[in-house]
Amino acid sequence: MPVFRVELAVRPRPGVKDPQAEAVQESLARLGHGGIAVRAVGRLLSMTIDCATSDEAERITAALCEQLLVNPNLETYSVSVEEVV
Amino acid sequence: MPVFRVELAVRPRPGVKDPQAEAVQESLARLGHGGIAVRAVGRLLSMTIDCATSDEAERITAALCEQLLVNPNLETYSVSVEEVV
Repeated sequence: MPVFRVELAVRPRPGVKDPQAEAVQESLARLGHGGIAVRAVGRLLSMTIDCATSDEAERITAALCEQLLVNPNLETYSVSVEEVV
Repeated sequence: MPVFRVELAVRPRPGVKDPQAEAVQESLARLGHGGIAVRAVGRLLSMTIDCATSDEAERITAALCEQLLVNPNLETYSVSVEEVV
């Protein structure tokens, strides 16, 4: 069966409080860095999925996001899929 | 001054224990999902940087990674930079 490498990026929705980004911003300020705005801190999940097609890997990933990996009230996600050869 | 959007992906080094990936893997197993291997869970930082050139944005980002954002013993990172127009 083919194997697909899936990269899932989960980010806070715009407007949702992002305490990790605030923490990084404050640390940068303490270190004296200006001109840098930390927009968001999110998560990156790398998976491999054994399935028939790239479309199926995307459907499986969407189901995982819904069931477990993403809080749709607070987060959005994007997915990239490529076949492992 | 130009503004650059920087996406920083921080991942555990291969072979380093990744408890977040293990936790996701166990949850997937409990939910009955087979054929999925969680390879790594990392962080994604989105920033904007005011500076002269894309190269300078990359240099600043490398300095931030060294000073604050990345533990080089346990993590690797990759950076993408694009100008905000």
